[in-house]
Amino acid sequence: MSGIATEVTMQRRPEGALKDDDFAFVERSLPAIAEGEVLVENHWMSVDPYMRLYLTEQSGAHAPLQVGETLHGGAVGIVVESRAKNLPVGAAVQSMLGFRDRFVAHASELIPVDANLAPLQSFLGVLGLTGLTAYGGTYHLLKPQAGETIYVNGAAGAVGSLVVQLAKRRGATVLASAGSDAKGAWVTDALGADSFINYRSDDLSEKLAEYAPDGLNMMFDNVGGGQLEAAIEAMAPMGRIALCGAIELYDSDNYRRGPANLFTTIERNVTLFGFNAGQFRSNAPAIVADLAGMLARGEIVNEETIVVGFDNCIAAFRGVLAGENTGKMLVQIKV
Amino acid sequence: MSGIATEVTMQRRPEGALKDDDFAFVERSLPAIAEGEVLVENHWMSVDPYMRLYLTEQSGAHAPLQVGETLHGGAVGIVVESRAKNLPVGAAVQSMLGFRDRFVAHASELIPVDANLAPLQSFLGVLGLTGLTAYGGTYHLLKPQAGETIYVNGAAGAVGSLVVQLAKRRGATVLASAGSDAKGAWVTDALGADSFINYRSDDLSEKLAEYAPDGLNMMFDNVGGGQLEAAIEAMAPMGRIALCGAIELYDSDNYRRGPANLFTTIERNVTLFGFNAGQFRSNAPAIVADLAGMLARGEIVNEETIVVGFDNCIAAFRGVLAGENTGKMLVQIKV
Repeated sequence: MSGIATEVTMQRRPEGALKDDDFAFVERSLPAIAEGEVLVENHWMSVDPYMRLYLTEQSGAHAPLQVGETLHGGAVGIVVESRAKNLPVGAAVQSMLGFRDRFVAHASELIPVDANLAPLQSFLGVLGLTGLTAYGGTYHLLKPQAGETIYVNGAAGAVGSLVVQLAKRRGATVLASAGSDAKGAWVTDALGADSFINYRSDDLSEKLAEYAPDGLNMMFDNVGGGQLEAAIEAMAPMGRIALCGAIELYDSDNYRRGPANLFTTIERNVTLFGFNAGQFRSNAPAIVADLAGMLARGEIVNEETIVVGFDNCIAAFRGVLAGENTGKMLVQIKV
Repeated sequence: MSGIATEVTMQRRPEGALKDDDFAFVERSLPAIAEGEVLVENHWMSVDPYMRLYLTEQSGAHAPLQVGETLHGGAVGIVVESRAKNLPVGAAVQSMLGFRDRFVAHASELIPVDANLAPLQSFLGVLGLTGLTAYGGTYHLLKPQAGETIYVNGAAGAVGSLVVQLAKRRGATVLASAGSDAKGAWVTDALGADSFINYRSDDLSEKLAEYAPDGLNMMFDNVGGGQLEAAIEAMAPMGRIALCGAIELYDSDNYRRGPANLFTTIERNVTLFGFNAGQFRSNAPAIVADLAGMLARGEIVNEETIVVGFDNCIAAFRGVLAGENTGKMLVQIKV
C-alpha cells in the first residue's frame, strides 16, 4: 500500500475562461508498488497553455480529456519507494503525470534527471520541453542570422523569453511583444530585446511597421489570431514563421482556425513551420546540453513564476492562460 | 507611327464569375518607336488563374487594376519594327504585356527567347512561369523522395500536370485530383499519377485516407479552400505543403483566408511553403535548361488547350478559372 494521492480531475468541460468548479481535487488510494515500479512524490508541476487544448472536444492531436479523468502535464519529483534497480529512492524523475501530488508508475515510463546539473524545476523549463521548443523552433527552423529582424510574441512567457535570448545570441534584431509595460521593461532590459510592443495598448501593425520598416524576416508565434495576421502583413519577402501556439484563441470555440490573410504568404514567399517539441526529440540530448551550458555560464536569464502549493494549481493554470506569469509558470507542490 | 493596337480593358470590377461586359476591346494608336524601342506583335497569350486577383480590390501583392486600364499577363510575340540593336525584326520576345495584339516597348523591358529551342508558346508554359512554378515548388521546396506520397490538386492544369510528372520522376506516389473523369484518365494514363480523385463527385477526405493510409508526406496546393483543409487533416507527421494558389476562392469575396484547421500543422509538425515563381528567379536558367532537356527528349507531356483568336481571350480567361483547360491554357492571337 503506497498511501493516498490527491489528483485534479475535470468535473465538467470548461467553456471560455477556466472556473474553479470545472475541476475537483480527488483523493485516490494508490496500489502497493510492484516489481519494476516506483512511488514518486511530485515536487514541481509545469503549467502550460497547451493544456487548455485537451479540455475541449475540438478534434486535434491532443485526445480530449473525459469528464472525471485526471489532468496530465509535465512534473518532476523524487522516488520515495522503489522496486526498480535503476531508480533508487531519492532519484529525481520527470513525468507527464502532473496534477497529482504522488503516483505509482513503472520505471520505464519515467525520465531520470540529473539533479546536480540544475535546480529540479529547470527540467520543466529551460532544460525541458520549454527549452526544446524554443531552441528547436529558433535554431533548427527559423535559423536567425545577424542583420535579420524577428518578431517574438508572448515574449515574457516561458518559451518566448528564451526565443528572445536565443535570437539575440545570433545577432538578430528582436521585436518583442507582451501584455504589460512591466513585462516590456524586463524583456528589453533583462533579455535584451531591441524593441517592445505592448499588444494591449499599442497598435501592433503600426509598431511592426515602425520597428521593421523593411519587413520582418522571422516571426516566432506563440499567440496566433490577430497577432499572427498582423505579422504576416508585416513579413518581408522570403520570411519564415515558426507556428508554436495560439494562446489568444485557446479559450475560444475555434482555436484551430488559420489567419485571414494566408494568401499573403504565397505573394511574399513566406514559409510557415507548424511545429512542436516532438520534432526535436532526437536532437534533445544535444539541445539540452547546449542550454545547460548557457545556464551554467549565466548566459541566459531563466525567470520563473512560482505558485506555491498544489491547491493553487488551477489558479496557476488560469494565470498562464491570462499571461500573469513572467518566464516559466510553475507550481511548487513540495516545499 | 506604329499603327493601331487592340487592347482589353476592365470596364467595371467583376463580381463573382467574369462576365463579357466586365471588359472591353479598345483600339489605341501606338506612337512611332523611339531609339531603343521595338514594335511587337503578340502571337500567344498566357491565361492564368492568378490574373483574377488583380481585378479585385482585396489588398495583396497584385496591385488592383483600375477601371479603364488594360489587363496584363504573359505573352510571346515577334518584333516587327526595331530601333534596338539586340532585338532585330523577327526576334521572339516574352513580355508581361498580354491582353493586347501589339505594343511598343523599350528592348530592356522584354526577354528574348530562343524560338529554335521549342515552340514559341512553350515560353509561356513549361519553359516559362508555369514551369518555374511547378519545378521550383516541387524540387526546391517539397523535394519528393522515393517512397513518399504527394497529393496534387488542379492536376490537369498547367502547373499541376507538370508537378505530377516531376514528382513521379523522383519516385513518389502521386495522388492527383481534378474535376472530371476524362481529366482523371489523362492524369493517370498520360501523366502517370498513381490514383485519381474527382473532387466534384468523390469525398476527398475519404479518398485521401484510402489512397494514403499512412498520411500524406506532401501536398502541392493549387486550389486552396476545402481541398487544403482536407489535405491538412490527411498529412503525416513532418509533412510539407507547397501553397501555390487558391483557385477555388478566386471568384469569392475572400480568397486570402487561411484554412479552418491551421492548428493541425502545429500538432503534426507540418511546414507550409507559401511561394510563387519569383522565388526561383535566380535559378531560372538552370530550371529552364533542365525542363527544356526533358521536353526535347520527350520525357514530359506538355499538353496545351489553345483558344484561337484574340477576340476569345475573355472566354479563355473564364475557362481557366472554371477548369475547362487540360494543361496550359493559351490564346493564339496570330495564326
